[in-house]
Amino acid sequence: MVTTPGVIATDAVVVGAGPCGLFAVFQLGLVAIKCHVIDASDEPGGQCSALYPDKPIFDIPGFTRISGSELTGRLLAQIAPFQAAFHQRQRVVSIARNGSGFVVTTDKGSVFHTKVVVIATGVLAAVVDWGVALQDDLIAVDPATFETSVPGLFAIGDVATYPGKLKIIVSGFHEAALLAQQAFQLLNPHSRQLLHYTSASTSVQKKLGVL
Amino acid sequence: MVTTPGVIATDAVVVGAGPCGLFAVFQLGLVAIKCHVIDASDEPGGQCSALYPDKPIFDIPGFTRISGSELTGRLLAQIAPFQAAFHQRQRVVSIARNGSGFVVTTDKGSVFHTKVVVIATGVLAAVVDWGVALQDDLIAVDPATFETSVPGLFAIGDVATYPGKLKIIVSGFHEAALLAQQAFQLLNPHSRQLLHYTSASTSVQKKLGVL
Repeated sequence: MVTTPGVIATDAVVVGAGPCGLFAVFQLGLVAIKCHVIDASDEPGGQCSALYPDKPIFDIPGFTRISGSELTGRLLAQIAPFQAAFHQRQRVVSIARNGSGFVVTTDKGSVFHTKVVVIATGVLAAVVDWGVALQDDLIAVDPATFETSVPGLFAIGDVATYPGKLKIIVSGFHEAALLAQQAFQLLNPHSRQLLHYTSASTSVQKKLGVL
Repeated sequence: MVTTPGVIATDAVVVGAGPCGLFAVFQLGLVAIKCHVIDASDEPGGQCSALYPDKPIFDIPGFTRISGSELTGRLLAQIAPFQAAFHQRQRVVSIARNGSGFVVTTDKGSVFHTKVVVIATGVLAAVVDWGVALQDDLIAVDPATFETSVPGLFAIGDVATYPGKLKIIVSGFHEAALLAQQAFQLLNPHSRQLLHYTSASTSVQKKLGVL
């Protein structure tokens, strides 16, 4: 891949830093995929933090109640070992094919050369032509992989749709986990990805910095 | 439905009290479906509590680390408002069709007449003929509803399989959420189920006892 000065080369770009985008960084990190995150808001957190930072949410597993801002803070702590780079206050203006990967450009002129793109923007940015199949203004994905009609381009969270889809945070977490497996396969076509249990895998625990 | 003395009539029976079974009780509770839980162990918690109570798990969203026993305790606190009845140290020995519902019988002689059954046992109990389509000794489910080949009989967690399935707790949480929607439709065929956001719905917050 030919890069030019000022261009960021990365394995994955995650667009949107809400809970689903943040957990995608975590799941991609577990399979050793480094991420750059592009987000339109001042701070990570998405709708959760922007629209109702202090309003309790009651259906996050393991929390009788949790505020959007606390959930965001806890997810940021969880993904910290993977050292994702955050690019706040930027909007994606184009995603173009580049060989087997993509060139992602933002309204601030940032350019990313990436192998994988994860759209986790909550709502569909009307301006951008993502080049993917839509259904009722949502991005249609394969629920086995959360890949869109474009290989290597994934969508999760409220912006994605598939049979049975619910716009709830807990589904976005599941979607993040499954997309990471498929992203790993795309980046490592000759490897056989085995699911590593975080409670048992020393290699995963080393990545997390707990061993 | 004709019931006999000693027979428990209920909307839903959840088989297995691991994290996925517990969160199914929560999600069913959100749509006002009351559950009885049948579990083979001494206490709720499943593999998490039985096999590695103190071993940290690192991939539960919002927790940099959490032990199986802490996760179990937190899920039990979360489902407490729904007052599910737990039947520990019992194994299901048969599930038989009964009109549009099921008769579930345990090795201790308990008999449940129920409209919906959720299998969340982790592993397939070799003895029981569940009457459902299997695939590699797992229960094949529709990933839009987590219903098996038998309408009204659901399977989630490690015992269930579908394209892309990962045996991770976070997927079980998502599966629980989607099955609850389908269970609601089965029990309320003339209602249109709208997804209620726990952060916004006063009716849900009343069910949870927080309003």
